[in-house]
Amino acid sequence: MKVVKFGGSSLSSGEQLEKVLKIVLSDSARKIVVVSAPGKRYSDDIKVTDLLISLAQCHLTGENADELFQTVVERYKGIAEELQLSDQIIETIKEDLENLLKADKSRPDRFIDAIKASGEDNNAKLIAAYFQHQGVDAQYVNPKDAGLFVSDEPGHAQVLPESYEQLYKLRERDGILIFPGFFGYTKGGDVLTFSRSGSDITGSILANGIKADLYENFTDVDAVYSVNPNIVENPREIKELTYREMRELSYAGFSVFHDEALIPAFRAGIPVNIKNTNNPSAPGTRVVNERENSNGPVIGIASDKGFCSIYISKYLMNREIGFGRKLLEILEDYGLSYEHIPSGIDDVTLILRQGQIDSETEKQILSQIKHDLNADEVRVEHNLSLIMVVGEGMRHNVGTTARAAKALADTGVNIEMINQGSSEVSMMFGIKEVDETRAVQALYHEFFVPVTV
Amino acid sequence: MKVVKFGGSSLSSGEQLEKVLKIVLSDSARKIVVVSAPGKRYSDDIKVTDLLISLAQCHLTGENADELFQTVVERYKGIAEELQLSDQIIETIKEDLENLLKADKSRPDRFIDAIKASGEDNNAKLIAAYFQHQGVDAQYVNPKDAGLFVSDEPGHAQVLPESYEQLYKLRERDGILIFPGFFGYTKGGDVLTFSRSGSDITGSILANGIKADLYENFTDVDAVYSVNPNIVENPREIKELTYREMRELSYAGFSVFHDEALIPAFRAGIPVNIKNTNNPSAPGTRVVNERENSNGPVIGIASDKGFCSIYISKYLMNREIGFGRKLLEILEDYGLSYEHIPSGIDDVTLILRQGQIDSETEKQILSQIKHDLNADEVRVEHNLSLIMVVGEGMRHNVGTTARAAKALADTGVNIEMINQGSSEVSMMFGIKEVDETRAVQALYHEFFVPVTV
Repeated sequence: MKVVKFGGSSLSSGEQLEKVLKIVLSDSARKIVVVSAPGKRYSDDIKVTDLLISLAQCHLTGENADELFQTVVERYKGIAEELQLSDQIIETIKEDLENLLKADKSRPDRFIDAIKASGEDNNAKLIAAYFQHQGVDAQYVNPKDAGLFVSDEPGHAQVLPESYEQLYKLRERDGILIFPGFFGYTKGGDVLTFSRSGSDITGSILANGIKADLYENFTDVDAVYSVNPNIVENPREIKELTYREMRELSYAGFSVFHDEALIPAFRAGIPVNIKNTNNPSAPGTRVVNERENSNGPVIGIASDKGFCSIYISKYLMNREIGFGRKLLEILEDYGLSYEHIPSGIDDVTLILRQGQIDSETEKQILSQIKHDLNADEVRVEHNLSLIMVVGEGMRHNVGTTARAAKALADTGVNIEMINQGSSEVSMMFGIKEVDETRAVQALYHEFFVPVTV
Repeated sequence: MKVVKFGGSSLSSGEQLEKVLKIVLSDSARKIVVVSAPGKRYSDDIKVTDLLISLAQCHLTGENADELFQTVVERYKGIAEELQLSDQIIETIKEDLENLLKADKSRPDRFIDAIKASGEDNNAKLIAAYFQHQGVDAQYVNPKDAGLFVSDEPGHAQVLPESYEQLYKLRERDGILIFPGFFGYTKGGDVLTFSRSGSDITGSILANGIKADLYENFTDVDAVYSVNPNIVENPREIKELTYREMRELSYAGFSVFHDEALIPAFRAGIPVNIKNTNNPSAPGTRVVNERENSNGPVIGIASDKGFCSIYISKYLMNREIGFGRKLLEILEDYGLSYEHIPSGIDDVTLILRQGQIDSETEKQILSQIKHDLNADEVRVEHNLSLIMVVGEGMRHNVGTTARAAKALADTGVNIEMINQGSSEVSMMFGIKEVDETRAVQALYHEFFVPVTV
């Protein structure tokens, strides 16, 4: 039994849904189909989820949103008409959306979450109608009905462990089950969404729930690439990688897969296959528990920009037990997360995403650090990039660090920071943003094939 | 005007003191002579300071310590007799020690500090007596009289800033001033010592106080070596290094110079020259504010063993703002300091000196981390060594990291951890203790001359 998930771009039009139907029918093991909301039809298009967020916000502020409402309905309508479905499904969707917009607005985050989630929910209903229209035994399944319960955390709810036992019973239902991604229900009956791109998470949860043999994630690329195709043309595709490698790569900028999504599948040991809706016969990328280390120590290189470093020095800092803790407390007071905190004898550096802080807040933080911790010097450097070199077995492959460092040196990139020693499957370099492209190309060249520039 | 400090080995016998006198007299700028307690006469000998600590402890517990007392007095007596001084100085020393041992015992740490400090104090009196005996215009100076006041922290007192103004007046005194190292007085009149080997600190404070042209630190090696001579035979001597480089090297295991000692001299921009009492014409090693980067990026390699790493992983750790802070709070509760804390996405590693924790405490800490922080996995690895590769300008010398990593890789040493990015003059590697010698030799070979094994 397989769980198959389709992303927005795979569901953006009637033409795409025809491909989806073909794919689902071509393998009788494909039991549960998890769907996102309709995605972009062309690059300047707006995702339905974004339209719904705007719609919800307009209703909260009391602005007129009739046009926005129509636009949303039109998106479904366009697809339905392309597939020659009856008006019934559009009426159902329209009514559902109207009811949601009339609902209680006293808790705005829940109001918004329910409307966001309707994108997936109504698309699942539409797709079930389409499958039925084509004579396929298919049913829309509501997450509450299936038992997908989540924690009470609007915007980033977590699945509750007891859901899995309930979800297992989906195996007993007949036919193909069309399941909306992205949301679940609290015990109190509220709709809450997972983090953005949470349909990946839904698929993972269902795969674990029904103890699937495979979780297939259909998107719009042939595979996960070893490096960002915007930096290196035609990069090598990754045939197989482990969960840990996928998570490290996702974290640092790969956007194929939402990085938390894998965990439920990982915990149940269910392999994942990333495939292309537009090229379903391509093998795609498999994500597994363990793999053979046959292709060298490095599986992929990810990078992300927009970091800053705050350098703090204080005479005899290393004698002051509690200094590090007090520093982190200041960060916590501002609600900030940090990537890494290289420590010296009399100095320490914080590496953070600079987007968390506007320039006014930055002044306050620097001032507070200097004052509360009695630092001798506090200075900030902006516009750093972090590069993650990822691969199982890198840790025991003596020489990978040297090769990476040499590749960077040879291309004239200065290494501002190295973070190695916690993760067993990755090594992190901090460099100036302006050097990022050159650095990633040099690393790719070192560990994969010559760069095609 | 110069401040000259002599360490214990330079003052262990009459023969040594004769060399000291010659050195002081050979340069009329040598105004203040800072002295330690008499050191070891041969390798199995016991330092006078250690004898005094035992003596003090015996008196606190009420044990008979007559023999120990005699042994201490004998050390001074032996030197005095060698130099044919009259008995007067030994009587003075004996009486002083007797008075100290009879003093108030209600605050044991101060009782011990005063007796520890008497090692230096009485040696200064003895040396002044010797110089006078040789017809030199020389005076013993008491720190209280000179205005060397310290903070009220037994065992690791800090000089109070207002002392410097007072100490400047020493310039006006005639003749050579013999000043005992290692201690000062609290405002309340208690004798308190600096950290161990604190005579280096006294010299540094006096050099700053009198705004000396040079602070000469006489010890028993020709120079600071670029690497531990126990690991590499005949290592290259360092001719000149900066204060920052010295501090980084001292921290990680070089024992030539007490690492905090330099700061007062550093703050006043006073250069330091490390020389050998037994070979005073050798140029020694100069420690300066800035130096020319003429000899390559690396000035020295220090290493230390006895570290452990605690690896902690938790699903979605990076989402949990405050996790790092809570972890450091646990360390703080146990009074532990850490060297470095490499951070991953879902994991973090603490690098600590394992000597801080006995195995029972270790169990408690691991358990508390697992429990309080709800970690998925907590495990410890012992017997790691840290290697510091040090050098100004290393940061801007693209390629140094690569060379270091390659040297380690080529000799088959796996890098467990890299800490680079805070200090601007050093790079830290974590490796297994068993690899330390091979690793340091390889790094020396890479950055200096071929290893003579």
